[in-house]
Amino acid sequence: MPRLNIGLIGLGRLGRVYARDLAGRIPESRLVAVADNAGTLAKDIAAEFEVPRSYTDAMALIDDPGVDAIVIVTPTDAHREHVLASVSKKKPTFCEKPPALSLAEIATMKRAIEQSGALFQMGFMRRFDAGYAAAKKQIEAGRIGMPLVFKATSRDPFRPSLEYANPASSGGMLLDMGIHDFDLARWFMGDVRSVAAIGATIAYPELATVGDIDNAIASLTFTSGKLGVVDLTRSGIYGYDISTEILGLEGTIRIGYLRETPITIMTKAGGVAHDTVPYFMERFRDAYTNQLQNFAQNVLQEKAPPITIDDGMEALRVGVAATRARETGATVTVADVR
Amino acid sequence: MPRLNIGLIGLGRLGRVYARDLAGRIPESRLVAVADNAGTLAKDIAAEFEVPRSYTDAMALIDDPGVDAIVIVTPTDAHREHVLASVSKKKPTFCEKPPALSLAEIATMKRAIEQSGALFQMGFMRRFDAGYAAAKKQIEAGRIGMPLVFKATSRDPFRPSLEYANPASSGGMLLDMGIHDFDLARWFMGDVRSVAAIGATIAYPELATVGDIDNAIASLTFTSGKLGVVDLTRSGIYGYDISTEILGLEGTIRIGYLRETPITIMTKAGGVAHDTVPYFMERFRDAYTNQLQNFAQNVLQEKAPPITIDDGMEALRVGVAATRARETGATVTVADVR
Amino acid sequence: MPRLNIGLIGLGRLGRVYARDLAGRIPESRLVAVADNAGTLAKDIAAEFEVPRSYTDAMALIDDPGVDAIVIVTPTDAHREHVLASVSKKKPTFCEKPPALSLAEIATMKRAIEQSGALFQMGFMRRFDAGYAAAKKQIEAGRIGMPLVFKATSRDPFRPSLEYANPASSGGMLLDMGIHDFDLARWFMGDVRSVAAIGATIAYPELATVGDIDNAIASLTFTSGKLGVVDLTRSGIYGYDISTEILGLEGTIRIGYLRETPITIMTKAGGVAHDTVPYFMERFRDAYTNQLQNFAQNVLQEKAPPITIDDGMEALRVGVAATRARETGATVTVADVR
Amino acid sequence: MPRLNIGLIGLGRLGRVYARDLAGRIPESRLVAVADNAGTLAKDIAAEFEVPRSYTDAMALIDDPGVDAIVIVTPTDAHREHVLASVSKKKPTFCEKPPALSLAEIATMKRAIEQSGALFQMGFMRRFDAGYAAAKKQIEAGRIGMPLVFKATSRDPFRPSLEYANPASSGGMLLDMGIHDFDLARWFMGDVRSVAAIGATIAYPELATVGDIDNAIASLTFTSGKLGVVDLTRSGIYGYDISTEILGLEGTIRIGYLRETPITIMTKAGGVAHDTVPYFMERFRDAYTNQLQNFAQNVLQEKAPPITIDDGMEALRVGVAATRARETGATVTVADVR
Repeated sequence: MPRLNIGLIGLGRLGRVYARDLAGRIPESRLVAVADNAGTLAKDIAAEFEVPRSYTDAMALIDDPGVDAIVIVTPTDAHREHVLASVSKKKPTFCEKPPALSLAEIATMKRAIEQSGALFQMGFMRRFDAGYAAAKKQIEAGRIGMPLVFKATSRDPFRPSLEYANPASSGGMLLDMGIHDFDLARWFMGDVRSVAAIGATIAYPELATVGDIDNAIASLTFTSGKLGVVDLTRSGIYGYDISTEILGLEGTIRIGYLRETPITIMTKAGGVAHDTVPYFMERFRDAYTNQLQNFAQNVLQEKAPPITIDDGMEALRVGVAATRARETGATVTVADVR
Repeated sequence: MPRLNIGLIGLGRLGRVYARDLAGRIPESRLVAVADNAGTLAKDIAAEFEVPRSYTDAMALIDDPGVDAIVIVTPTDAHREHVLASVSKKKPTFCEKPPALSLAEIATMKRAIEQSGALFQMGFMRRFDAGYAAAKKQIEAGRIGMPLVFKATSRDPFRPSLEYANPASSGGMLLDMGIHDFDLARWFMGDVRSVAAIGATIAYPELATVGDIDNAIASLTFTSGKLGVVDLTRSGIYGYDISTEILGLEGTIRIGYLRETPITIMTKAGGVAHDTVPYFMERFRDAYTNQLQNFAQNVLQEKAPPITIDDGMEALRVGVAATRARETGATVTVADVR
Repeated sequence: MPRLNIGLIGLGRLGRVYARDLAGRIPESRLVAVADNAGTLAKDIAAEFEVPRSYTDAMALIDDPGVDAIVIVTPTDAHREHVLASVSKKKPTFCEKPPALSLAEIATMKRAIEQSGALFQMGFMRRFDAGYAAAKKQIEAGRIGMPLVFKATSRDPFRPSLEYANPASSGGMLLDMGIHDFDLARWFMGDVRSVAAIGATIAYPELATVGDIDNAIASLTFTSGKLGVVDLTRSGIYGYDISTEILGLEGTIRIGYLRETPITIMTKAGGVAHDTVPYFMERFRDAYTNQLQNFAQNVLQEKAPPITIDDGMEALRVGVAATRARETGATVTVADVR
Repeated sequence: MPRLNIGLIGLGRLGRVYARDLAGRIPESRLVAVADNAGTLAKDIAAEFEVPRSYTDAMALIDDPGVDAIVIVTPTDAHREHVLASVSKKKPTFCEKPPALSLAEIATMKRAIEQSGALFQMGFMRRFDAGYAAAKKQIEAGRIGMPLVFKATSRDPFRPSLEYANPASSGGMLLDMGIHDFDLARWFMGDVRSVAAIGATIAYPELATVGDIDNAIASLTFTSGKLGVVDLTRSGIYGYDISTEILGLEGTIRIGYLRETPITIMTKAGGVAHDTVPYFMERFRDAYTNQLQNFAQNVLQEKAPPITIDDGMEALRVGVAATRARETGATVTVADVR
């Protein structure tokens, strides 16, 4: 099996997970270079995972002739720069979601990708989760008939830092947390026509100081006329809870679980108890690996990536629409968001 | 144990269930008279359950001096007449939800009840279900902290007849199906400030011919600032599915189940299968009995009924608000609905 | 609907539950007399449930010409006397399990029943539980193919008193707790050919002082060659847990649940928690009522009772075989137990 | 991170999975050589996973100076030869369960391992499953108090070939399927004192032609006096079902699940349905990887392996005891099996 020589840019928390995946868990990949502008981070990670070359300058990694494909996991505001540089070198490029926080920026990236002809794959790891993938397959096989209603719940188990939550950098809760659900909504149901939303700061009043909310509900009307609803909370204190349902004309399918391990404990004190899922890395660990493996396979086999920059752009557009709807109290037509 | 001599008006499907309950399943009650204006129905039911007297005229039953309390299960449009007559006789009165389909009518009933001083109990049987009652108790005990978000799903397993669905008599789906959820919303979270809603006829196009929809999503903002969402479907083809969740600051509580009996079957053909719940009578059979037993106990022990005409009025008001919101696309303030 | 005039003998804990059922929860029955030899108990219960006549002497109740059928819930060692008296009067008779603790006594009862021609129904309430009844129906419909293996678990949530546990009166744990499972084994699989068993006093050492054990496992070989296993514990401290499985050639069916109410609670402290079932009255409340209702219907409609004295005798025989097997360490042939 | 140069012997189904793991999924390992005596299999696998060297002669791989550690996944009857050769070279050695089918052979292996001083790790992958590992941790933390009863169920979803099932090579069902459960029994509860067992050929009569059975139940008494039961079936037609429970004085813990992916499907036809687990590779895929990763880490970090040849020997001894008990109908003392 040939291996793809990959360079990884961005070594934050998720970046380090990707380094381990690319170096030692994906048979189709070989991690040949890492880059991060923070001190000796790249050097340290290179040492830990036996990566031949490390850079503090992402551009140097992109230029490295031994690097055949690029994985970008830098902060969102750096995505554009790295994607533009990578595709200009015609290197196959993977970029974490969201592509950017402004539609204009994404439009620039889209043009650059199209002009370069480079393979570009957008990251939305939930599509690679065994549960979501199985649901998609069952729906395509007609198991629940025509999909009618999309329902999604996303709950983070604790409050983010005020710095992180600041809508200036996060885009605000409906966008920051909701973008995964809006992508799933489009994946299962097609494009969204309009959005209405309510939201409030009712769990963590301090979030109001930076202008963010902690609970929200968005109602979606799809262009097909079908309906959807997404509810989000930053205060899912009992555990990380990501649940989705697609109700069809012939049945329904639910994705999600609350148990980290297949054990059940019952005691006098605690009734029936399952261990809940701590956070996204426990829930979607395999999905992240599958996603990168899929990217490597697409490059090696010259297959079209299943998730494109358009998917990134449209999910963001729904998120922006939801945010505006929440702020104005009016229903927002997605196509009007530019 | 003393028994309350009860007269029952209305012997449709639910009325017959109530006849059996009052005659033979509730130690505190004695069914002494039944009334229905349809042919020999009252006579037949009286014979079946050994009820001493039967009437085709509800007013005659209300006048019967041996009848100490009245249970009204007639069609909604007859509630006002029967309630007014019953309370004017100062007889303790139980009436099934909704009290009426117009707020003006309910206001008339409310005035009559107050003037008479008669005990009046509104029917909302879900509050007497073991699950909902246990949830209420747990929340009051602080098990999940301050409630933040109310979520409810109600799914009927098949399409109603076009005649039944006609909004002229049913009030439309958001009212007809939603009123139970709106009552639960108020019970768990307090009054509703405003409602937004979307809905569509996407499962059963023929419902559009009478002006009804088959799927809807209503977003609630409570006067406390807390949030809620209710989704309704007439096409829950896999079984009757009533699920509710209250997310609190310290945890969450879910009510509902899909299994009719505590059995699990696994075969090569069908994976893991539980028998689903056919319809409301299977799901809420005991809740109906508990509700009538509670009424009898309240009368015998001179206790204030837990559900009043105000509860009926306010749940209807939310339903009307949701219906208008769905029709206009605008958020409707509940207090503006008169 | 005609009602059966029933007299109830024995007003201990279960007796009082039966009194309420017969007086006010079973449309086919009228409780006309109660008897208990303890002080004013019968008089008090009669007052509570509006029962016309009460007796301290069971024989007087049996002789009462207004009593058309007898329900016997006295302590096991009194069953023989009451059953013999009741059937000698040719009155339809229901008797709680076990009929007696000695096979010789049961044989005497069986002869008396047969000679009298009176309808006699043995109590094994699990057969009337919605779950067990549904499982039986599914198996008879061929849903899991030919049954191959029977598995049952019975767990009591706390230690019985030493007085109760004493094998001289309880028959010992394998008989006392196991008789329900041995009856189910026979119901689902047919007769048992041989039994092996192990057991120990490992949870509550004090039980050894009266000669009882607290955990046991019995292996069954049916006369058909099929296999079974029953495990019992007196230390199921997390809740009352009665679970049964029948594995067939085409699938498996499981009966049992651990939730008292259909709610799920998740908190930071406790993971996913369901409320567990406290004890048998919560788990099998409806089964007890169904059982008595079935008895009343059988008498009124002159139908053969589904559970006979033979069922009581054979379940006891398996229990005695299991007890001997545990004591001797040898496999015991059930037919050799006399 | 240093990597361990591993040579893999045996490239059957599990061997190929191990090849992929060692080559591309375990950061601590580098697969440098593979061996199999079947045609070009080793060569083909080497090409597929970019393994530098391949051998048809296992002894040549063991002698390869570039191979620092050996993983043996050959058929059971070849384990002795390969283990003896590997440890004689003082190379750290991992061998799949069971070590051999005769206790005498295992004793020879044990002596060779001890004399060589080489690190030797026995394969029992269930101990590395997230569920079993979490259960062990919870029990050690006292979550369920002192363990009292061990219960295990293992069900294969289809009949093995008659050739495979032949007790001459498989050891018979109680040993072949049960060895995993007997190892878990020892891991959770300590040594087994005695075993009784029943079994029969009731699902697949053709198995009787080679002398094997298809269903069995073994009762265990531990040297501590605690109790256990293991039930095994070759006809778990609804899916691969591995479930284990440890009942303690303060609660109980259950391990196992039946869902392959976290989805639930409900349709009119099928009730509530989860996709069941097809077979062991789906259920224990991660456990296999974790097991090899643990081996590599133990070698690199010079840590004592958690599973030894003694564990292999004692689990086999219980299996042999269960087999004899089933054949003779008598309880077999494990220490008497030699």
